[in-house]
Amino acid sequence: MNRKELLFEIKKKKSFLCIGLDPDLDKIPSHLLQLDDPIFEFNKQIIEATKDLCIAYKPNIAFYETLGSKGWDTLQKTLEYIPKNIFTIADAKRGDIGNTSRMYGRAFFKNLNFNAITVSPYMGKDSITPFLDFKNKWVIILALTSNNGSVDFQKILNDNDKPLFSQVLEKSRNWGTDNNIMYVVGATRAEHLLEIRKIIPNHFLLIPGVGKQGGKLKDVTKYGMNAECGLIVNSSRGIIYAGNGIDFAQKAKEEAKKLQQEMACILYDFGI
Amino acid sequence: MNRKELLFEIKKKKSFLCIGLDPDLDKIPSHLLQLDDPIFEFNKQIIEATKDLCIAYKPNIAFYETLGSKGWDTLQKTLEYIPKNIFTIADAKRGDIGNTSRMYGRAFFKNLNFNAITVSPYMGKDSITPFLDFKNKWVIILALTSNNGSVDFQKILNDNDKPLFSQVLEKSRNWGTDNNIMYVVGATRAEHLLEIRKIIPNHFLLIPGVGKQGGKLKDVTKYGMNAECGLIVNSSRGIIYAGNGIDFAQKAKEEAKKLQQEMACILYDFGI
Repeated sequence: MNRKELLFEIKKKKSFLCIGLDPDLDKIPSHLLQLDDPIFEFNKQIIEATKDLCIAYKPNIAFYETLGSKGWDTLQKTLEYIPKNIFTIADAKRGDIGNTSRMYGRAFFKNLNFNAITVSPYMGKDSITPFLDFKNKWVIILALTSNNGSVDFQKILNDNDKPLFSQVLEKSRNWGTDNNIMYVVGATRAEHLLEIRKIIPNHFLLIPGVGKQGGKLKDVTKYGMNAECGLIVNSSRGIIYAGNGIDFAQKAKEEAKKLQQEMACILYDFGI
Repeated sequence: MNRKELLFEIKKKKSFLCIGLDPDLDKIPSHLLQLDDPIFEFNKQIIEATKDLCIAYKPNIAFYETLGSKGWDTLQKTLEYIPKNIFTIADAKRGDIGNTSRMYGRAFFKNLNFNAITVSPYMGKDSITPFLDFKNKWVIILALTSNNGSVDFQKILNDNDKPLFSQVLEKSRNWGTDNNIMYVVGATRAEHLLEIRKIIPNHFLLIPGVGKQGGKLKDVTKYGMNAECGLIVNSSRGIIYAGNGIDFAQKAKEEAKKLQQEMACILYDFGI
């Protein structure tokens, strides 16, 4: 999916919501556990209930790998089930030398047909560029994450008083374009978003952490949104575990709907 | 496997060789391709031929994921085939928020029974510590890698003129101990190894890149070895693709033997 198609979906659905598909056997409704593939059934019902409200799904690969080869099959079936007009993000946080990144690219872009993959920048340019060779695919580079550990290295200042995450943005934005690179930005603090938008005014930002991880939609959009929207805001647990009974998908839909309606108002206010 | 057991194997085998199991269908001998699981057959023969010469195997997870759920099965079979006295490293370069790292920990430490996993430090402490909760398991944190891209961020100086990789070592060494943390150090340049050994004199270093990626065993050991050895030196392609015919495993054995003999002499010189 290219930028134009993604922007079309955002306008059409009045939504920039991404739903994290992080299904955990310990958390999904117990009535599903007797089925052959409970995780797939869970995902299927979540997708059916929410597909008109979100513009992206983001399976967290750890939740599938922990189930071994069966988990990988479930992931594949899930990807095949997601409608083609919805952007798909492999939340994998990979990153290795060129040769290996190409293999990961093949696994996620070719075999599973994801539109995007999250990657860590630590190993530098040649760990990222192999992913950019895949046409109409995206890398989403970790810049500033939302966890406590983000202070350990991402905010270290260099000799010019620039935090590492700014340097990641400044350097990596030239490895591709805003048509194939996005950034993970967990920050909801205004000063960070303002700084980030100075460096990359046009790139899409994937914002985790609206919901369980804290963070407010209004703050994020006030400082992070650009003229074309430029945001994909993720919610995982707040949506997929909204309910725990037979009606879990309906509950998920209600939570997704709340966020989508808020997003519709924000897009309206921004004239998008 | 704990530190004592690992040191025992190093002394017994007079080797600190790790062999990278990065099997690529485009590169393995063609006579294997007609088999049900060519990659497993390849690994099996490599393991049979080299198991007395190395103290560790390091499957690169990308090479298995690119084959989908079948690749995951092959990985599992490979892990089950590796003798229990050999250290196993999942070269996965994972790293995510706590919840997700725990899932990866379960996938690699519990289900596949790896001894160690490589992880990226970019997301900080809470992305690493969940792996340390698994008893007798190891995390191997990326510090200074051997690829060209290592200059992009790992060597950025902070306001005290310290490169990022040194700060990674200084901070992360306190998250665990030298009994459950190792570091990836791709450097073969003396000044880097000297600097690294000042910060972490006792930790094991996993050194990639002896062989195809360049780098000489003598230089590495001169500045990187400590009184207990403290090194695991990896070679992948130089060993596993030494031959391409029916006798590929024999060729691999010969290459592994050359490195092991060199290592035996170095250990002797160090009085280990």
